[in-house]
Amino acid sequence: MTGSSAFHPGRPDAMTPDSVTPDHVTIVEVGPRDGLQNDPTHLSPAVRAELVARLAASGVPEIEAVSFVHPQRVPQMAGAEDVIAASRAAPGAAILMGLVLNERGFERAVASGLRHVRYAFPVSEAFAARNQNQTVAQATALAATLTARARAEGIGIGIVLATSFGCPFDGRIPPAAVLRVAEAVAQAAPDELVFADSIGVGNPRAVRDLLRGARTFAAPGTRLGMHFHNTRNTGYANAAAAVEHGTQSLDSSVGGLGGCPFAPRATGNVATEDLGYLLREMGVHTGLDLGALTRTGAWLAAQLGHDLPGMLAQAGDFPA
Amino acid sequence: MTGSSAFHPGRPDAMTPDSVTPDHVTIVEVGPRDGLQNDPTHLSPAVRAELVARLAASGVPEIEAVSFVHPQRVPQMAGAEDVIAASRAAPGAAILMGLVLNERGFERAVASGLRHVRYAFPVSEAFAARNQNQTVAQATALAATLTARARAEGIGIGIVLATSFGCPFDGRIPPAAVLRVAEAVAQAAPDELVFADSIGVGNPRAVRDLLRGARTFAAPGTRLGMHFHNTRNTGYANAAAAVEHGTQSLDSSVGGLGGCPFAPRATGNVATEDLGYLLREMGVHTGLDLGALTRTGAWLAAQLGHDLPGMLAQAGDFPA
Repeated sequence: MTGSSAFHPGRPDAMTPDSVTPDHVTIVEVGPRDGLQNDPTHLSPAVRAELVARLAASGVPEIEAVSFVHPQRVPQMAGAEDVIAASRAAPGAAILMGLVLNERGFERAVASGLRHVRYAFPVSEAFAARNQNQTVAQATALAATLTARARAEGIGIGIVLATSFGCPFDGRIPPAAVLRVAEAVAQAAPDELVFADSIGVGNPRAVRDLLRGARTFAAPGTRLGMHFHNTRNTGYANAAAAVEHGTQSLDSSVGGLGGCPFAPRATGNVATEDLGYLLREMGVHTGLDLGALTRTGAWLAAQLGHDLPGMLAQAGDFPA
Repeated sequence: MTGSSAFHPGRPDAMTPDSVTPDHVTIVEVGPRDGLQNDPTHLSPAVRAELVARLAASGVPEIEAVSFVHPQRVPQMAGAEDVIAASRAAPGAAILMGLVLNERGFERAVASGLRHVRYAFPVSEAFAARNQNQTVAQATALAATLTARARAEGIGIGIVLATSFGCPFDGRIPPAAVLRVAEAVAQAAPDELVFADSIGVGNPRAVRDLLRGARTFAAPGTRLGMHFHNTRNTGYANAAAAVEHGTQSLDSSVGGLGGCPFAPRATGNVATEDLGYLLREMGVHTGLDLGALTRTGAWLAAQLGHDLPGMLAQAGDFPA
């Protein structure tokens, strides 16, 4: 995939923001990355590649398959190159993405043969300093650099704004502050711009404000997306609001993988199959196979040795 | 309380439906009724009255405290009169409600001294036949009868339309079909009209359609409300959508009590404290004390001997 051509922009620019009610949203499965990176069970690259293949076979169009971080910092992500090599060898139509946090990660991602990279950084100064030892301005500059490098390499790039609703150190982050960073990032016209609720403190009105604001400056080729966690039971409400306000993509994790498995209800990511159920009932097309996703979640739970928090697998689809 | 005066209508009728963004929603706590009625642990009337008192002290403005059903059918609700007598003796500003399913229940509720009754019936013929041995037309006629009797008694009455989104036997129920029943019920101008997603299969767009439709025929004195279950992780999304489309009340249950405790994640009702968190973050006032509610949930879990599915209690408030 190069540039924005492989995405499904589908944004009716002639419409006013709030009348945008898309009948399609692209789901980006992040379980192999955001889900597994917090799990006490470390899966081998071969098993992670099998997870990617099972997800692709469940109708997920795009998969954040790995992150290129130092294996001493995040051992769950060790062997990212092996995961990509095995996944690229398997048949399947899903677009694979890799997450990077710096230029070294970007270079590893390019070398792995991936055709799409995501660069994530927090919009909160406190989090940026503690987690990535940089300022938000430095990170914003790197976003422009990496977007240019991706263009030169002919690969797609997404910029993910972490802590877009709140930060454990700085508290609530007003949409206006997030939008200032987003507007700077958007100048380079990345293929996607994703607002991430890293700690599960977003709400539907902030979602609305971010999407309304971003649409005023995002280039037509920049897909706007959202990434929610369901830590306080707000994740699905935020996802539904994002759809009503014209988001073009939503991140999610099969089974809701990504919380702390020792506190089963302190779930992390929105569960892909539960999100797919919600969107289907809203009349929004995703292409997901909910039954196959539920089976993939059960397979993954067996690999990890613990249950996953998704609810559709417990309650069953409706109508059955 | 008589008639609609004790409610907080707050509906700006001059606005178009979709521009209604209320800054206040009335929470109706249904844990003592809809929550406890499914629990394997049967609490005594004294403990249930203590729960009502703790909820009232947590800022809940209205409480569905009991149902007047035969104790052989729902033993958890035995001694409803004792719960009401004990709760009325305690200080507290909350409005207490009792649920009834027939005229006999209505008479018990009046005799108990309650000043507000809710009559619930399913809008699905299959469910009405199996659960209440009646037709929807018979139930609709009874709604008019009970509304008139409540007027004569000088007490408030709400009509709750169960299975307003789907039925285990009839499948999905289109909003248009629900609205036909609602319009007939609304002719008698009850104090509230509540659409209940009894089995957790609603979605935000159906919520919108029901509220838009109901506003075209509901009397100004009829408060429009919604009741959601989070069985498939859609309950909070539906609640947020209901607020954006002008609902005046939302039912919920402390701790999310009401699911099957043997399948901890197959939760039932939306958790009051999680809903309060979501609404607070949206800028919507409820008057709830989230900390007190969380403590009440912990107290209740100890009484029942099992955890409750609410997530705010696990994750903690934010900002802390």
